[in-house]
Amino acid sequence: MRIGRMQTDSGEILVRPAGVETYVALAPEGVTLNQVLAGHPVAVDGDQVPAGSLLSPFTPGKIVAIGLNYLDHIREAQADQPTAPLVFTKFPSSVVGPGAAITIDRAVAARVDWEVELAVVIGQRAQRVSPEAALNHVFGYTVANDVSARDVQFADGQWVRGKSLDTFCPFGPWVVTADEVIDPQALKLGTRVNGQVMQDSSTAEMLFGVAELISYCSHSFTLEPGDVLLTGTPWGCGEFMDPRVSLQDGDTVEVWIEGIGSLTNPVTVLSDGVRG
Amino acid sequence: MRIGRMQTDSGEILVRPAGVETYVALAPEGVTLNQVLAGHPVAVDGDQVPAGSLLSPFTPGKIVAIGLNYLDHIREAQADQPTAPLVFTKFPSSVVGPGAAITIDRAVAARVDWEVELAVVIGQRAQRVSPEAALNHVFGYTVANDVSARDVQFADGQWVRGKSLDTFCPFGPWVVTADEVIDPQALKLGTRVNGQVMQDSSTAEMLFGVAELISYCSHSFTLEPGDVLLTGTPWGCGEFMDPRVSLQDGDTVEVWIEGIGSLTNPVTVLSDGVRG
Repeated sequence: MRIGRMQTDSGEILVRPAGVETYVALAPEGVTLNQVLAGHPVAVDGDQVPAGSLLSPFTPGKIVAIGLNYLDHIREAQADQPTAPLVFTKFPSSVVGPGAAITIDRAVAARVDWEVELAVVIGQRAQRVSPEAALNHVFGYTVANDVSARDVQFADGQWVRGKSLDTFCPFGPWVVTADEVIDPQALKLGTRVNGQVMQDSSTAEMLFGVAELISYCSHSFTLEPGDVLLTGTPWGCGEFMDPRVSLQDGDTVEVWIEGIGSLTNPVTVLSDGVRG
Repeated sequence: MRIGRMQTDSGEILVRPAGVETYVALAPEGVTLNQVLAGHPVAVDGDQVPAGSLLSPFTPGKIVAIGLNYLDHIREAQADQPTAPLVFTKFPSSVVGPGAAITIDRAVAARVDWEVELAVVIGQRAQRVSPEAALNHVFGYTVANDVSARDVQFADGQWVRGKSLDTFCPFGPWVVTADEVIDPQALKLGTRVNGQVMQDSSTAEMLFGVAELISYCSHSFTLEPGDVLLTGTPWGCGEFMDPRVSLQDGDTVEVWIEGIGSLTNPVTVLSDGVRG
């Protein structure tokens, strides 16, 4: 099943797509995906919902992100191959939904880059789980754009601020439940900026697969329902192109993953916090 | 006012201290500090509550932490003085309350250190606020121990994993509301391990004060009610002593801040995830 969140005139409601621009309610208005993860039932044969704006499907508890996890991206960045997953994070306050603007404040960030990522939604608490058992803790998958201010990221050394600027984590539109994803390591994924292909790869390029990542993380910290794991990005970041490419005012960025979804966001540049 | 959270036989309840081992209920059972931040009323003349275990007062939304922010700690670490606040983070899943064990899994971490920190509880959303207005966004203050696995922190480069191992953020016991803290930059604070003084300094040693930190962060990302800002630690980390000192099985760590509170946690070492 695909689960999204829609803004209607009266509130927010979980929906599934049921045709072109047609959506069916999965639960009464106000019920969140976090409540579904905690056991709230989902009705697959609910009422049709008038089309509204899709939001991010939910706000993650914590976002665990993995750096340098695609072999083609490691080559592009001329980095050494990590011997263990490299954990970093984005603040959940950076999450926005499909269609929302990625807002760049020029007083803070100059070089802003895209990163398509397979996002894993944790459904069941994971604490010291084996790679063999790890996928049992997955509720589903969605698409994320790990937008990154490269100048901030590299100047700080610690990556969290440059990757957590407000609006820097477009996320959604659909959480696809795990039963519909036969092999998370065989999904094509990519990025288009203004229609031009920038990233084009496959999750088969991951150095550490989803199961290994969950197991590894769960030996350091507990993964809780509603946490999200971002599994790294493939080759094709603008920062490593010659000449370098950064997102500009008026750009449109689409990140997509085969069988999971496509997430499109416009780019807006502010000047000193003010719309320029 | 001081606000804590107590585990009773029937559930969790917000309390204030009203004498030795005496506590008064601030709200009906089940009401959380996050609900108070959202406007739920607090009754100062509630019923007395039988003494139970104090928990962490709440679980933060996000934890924004600042590195190398005490002049005496910068000298001790032989680091360059940052020209802007250095933002890092701990996962909220690392939070434990007073008395709970700091658990070290020897399969993950070897050199585990203490860090007393003044923790600022955000009460009102802060987005691009000036230093002059920043303290209006503070609900209160509490004590945190930014427990750090130095071997993991330095091997990863990104600090979040080594600082987010489960139980690595003792937090509490009391949130002291801002009206009771006349000057957050004039508080003595320190750490004792097994009664021996390890850290002993003052928040006057901060390079960037609380107001500057809130303003700086709020220009990069939104601070939301229930977020917590950890403001750095002074000199006296075990990692920089000669010879180096790390926490060991059976140790007791107390971190304290004048007028805010004292937080004591025992240390338990596991071997490969199993109690050794």
